[in-house]
Amino acid sequence: MQVSRRSQVDPFIVMDVMEAATQAEANGRHIIHMEVGQPGTPAPAGARAALAAAMEESPLGYTSALGLLALREGIAALYQKWYGVTVSPARIVVTSGSSAGFLLAFTALFDAGDRVGLGLPGYPSYRQILRALSLTDVGFETSEANRFQPVPDDLVGRDLKGLIVASPSNPSGTILSRAALAALIESCAATDTAFISDEIYHGIHHGERAVSALELSDDVYVINSFSKYFSMTGWRIGWMVVPQDHVRTVERLAQNMFICAPHAAQIAALGALGCDAELDANLEVYSANRALMLEELPKAGFTRFAPPDGAFYIYAEVSEFTDNSLAFSQEILEKAGVSVTPGLDFDAGRGAQWMRFSYARSTADIKEGLARLRKFMTERGHL
Amino acid sequence: MQVSRRSQVDPFIVMDVMEAATQAEANGRHIIHMEVGQPGTPAPAGARAALAAAMEESPLGYTSALGLLALREGIAALYQKWYGVTVSPARIVVTSGSSAGFLLAFTALFDAGDRVGLGLPGYPSYRQILRALSLTDVGFETSEANRFQPVPDDLVGRDLKGLIVASPSNPSGTILSRAALAALIESCAATDTAFISDEIYHGIHHGERAVSALELSDDVYVINSFSKYFSMTGWRIGWMVVPQDHVRTVERLAQNMFICAPHAAQIAALGALGCDAELDANLEVYSANRALMLEELPKAGFTRFAPPDGAFYIYAEVSEFTDNSLAFSQEILEKAGVSVTPGLDFDAGRGAQWMRFSYARSTADIKEGLARLRKFMTERGHL
Repeated sequence: MQVSRRSQVDPFIVMDVMEAATQAEANGRHIIHMEVGQPGTPAPAGARAALAAAMEESPLGYTSALGLLALREGIAALYQKWYGVTVSPARIVVTSGSSAGFLLAFTALFDAGDRVGLGLPGYPSYRQILRALSLTDVGFETSEANRFQPVPDDLVGRDLKGLIVASPSNPSGTILSRAALAALIESCAATDTAFISDEIYHGIHHGERAVSALELSDDVYVINSFSKYFSMTGWRIGWMVVPQDHVRTVERLAQNMFICAPHAAQIAALGALGCDAELDANLEVYSANRALMLEELPKAGFTRFAPPDGAFYIYAEVSEFTDNSLAFSQEILEKAGVSVTPGLDFDAGRGAQWMRFSYARSTADIKEGLARLRKFMTERGHL
Repeated sequence: MQVSRRSQVDPFIVMDVMEAATQAEANGRHIIHMEVGQPGTPAPAGARAALAAAMEESPLGYTSALGLLALREGIAALYQKWYGVTVSPARIVVTSGSSAGFLLAFTALFDAGDRVGLGLPGYPSYRQILRALSLTDVGFETSEANRFQPVPDDLVGRDLKGLIVASPSNPSGTILSRAALAALIESCAATDTAFISDEIYHGIHHGERAVSALELSDDVYVINSFSKYFSMTGWRIGWMVVPQDHVRTVERLAQNMFICAPHAAQIAALGALGCDAELDANLEVYSANRALMLEELPKAGFTRFAPPDGAFYIYAEVSEFTDNSLAFSQEILEKAGVSVTPGLDFDAGRGAQWMRFSYARSTADIKEGLARLRKFMTERGHL
């Protein structure tokens, strides 16, 4: 049997980095994890308690393809609470993480060969999922001046059927202003380009909150997840908001492609919606970690990075030290016992000279990681 | 925004039937569920206990894209136990249900436009997932003489890149003999046609067990799930076995398309592997239900059906009563309070005169459902 052409996607490098870190740990080494974009905290206690109770009360069979109504209503209430926006639960599709949201959105909107734009650096799986679906990923380099985010001029002459935007962005952590987001949505509307807003890092911001595309338009796809703010990565539970006249199309796709999102995770997510105090405490940890990073990373020699408005990443330029960020991250893992992600995952060109540091874990871990990095950089002769 | 052409898949009718039944229940009616292919039982107690403990011990973050090693080893042991076949855990990919297995298999093996064969009647989502991935589904009618399963002659002249086979089959419940399965695998190998074996109903058989494609060849994709035998539908957890030289391709796709299968469900599935006594008790219920069905369905006027070798379905011919199985199922729901699935879901042509009855629920439910069907058919003047 032969594999298909479209199956030949790039590896998700951070997953391979995680594997290497796990291997090192299996060999008895102590590794500080600054590679992976996931909290060190579990799902909130209320989420776990809700599931523990439900497991003993119900068989947890298939749910409706669009998800449990109570969860869709809870998510609608979140839009009211976070943004003051009224979103009908009927437009909310519960998904198996944002990953399933991308699969659903891309198949609902695009046919084989269609061109879909995305700014670089950006979440690597956008490109790989597009390729796996026989779509054409059109990556374009964003600039530091534009906060590593697309601008309307980037759409010109590219013949795009869609555009994916993330604010806060991964890896840069930058947030689009209301005006900048509105300009992108308007440009897309004017050129019949589908606008997909990845809002997975909403709720994690260090100054002004991020604006949702739903504050500006109903004619957009919004993808979100319980992974980050709600600290539920491994549960694979998220949601999508789609235009009302797309609901039935997305429902039919979801019925066939997924049947439904995991029932257990839906119950836990519903529980998580009521856990503000615990989630706010997580935010305080990120905030403390970020302050530590901004203070200590420069002392370790990493002085130039994108404005970290939100999420839990610092995207740093490392061209003084390497022109191969993958090799550099392997060296850091081996010599410093710190796992970090090479920029190549996010930007196949310039990413060779950038590195993403995640500060999603405990403050003690971040402290230790920073100390190890400083020692490593000293021994490498940079300090 | 416009939806894509490939998004215009058919609804998964049984999901719509479930919705209608749920609506009726919300309106205060008591409905007997003979529509949906899921056990009424929960995940086994050992599965739930394993998760309840793990939730309090670990954050349940992302796992490796291929799944928890202990679970992959447990599944490998199952192949030894059920079939006496040695399968390396390295070839086992844990998936978010068989649904994710299909998405991974189809993208790993086929490019846009490729033709993939499947026998009718068959699981409807094969066709819809193929279409959503810009592939060409090539359905062909199977015959009662061939137990509603494909035979090598069906491949001739169809220019197929792949073939999907299910044994036991949904909806018919028929099982392929070892010789019949071997003949199909050999024909595919000879014509460079990828062979995908859907073994989701393995473990549920009423005479001889079903043969796994892995007993006959390593150059096949096998898709399976914890949904049916292990009674874990809503958990969305399954697995795939792929040829060794396809593992890295599938791993890269899984990293990007899914990140990983739900961690909580992986823990529960690992627990379920040790719950033989409880699962055997479920099998005894199916066996009792099947005996009831074979005894009572004919008394309700349904006399002609496919040989129900495995799974928990009876696929019955209803041409004496209707030439529109969808309308007939709606009438049965409304008048008899029994939810059944029209054959149209499985076979867009002949399915208008067939109906699938599921007997996966409790014996008390099946008894009541059969009594209601008999009364309904009497009142409709057929008895």
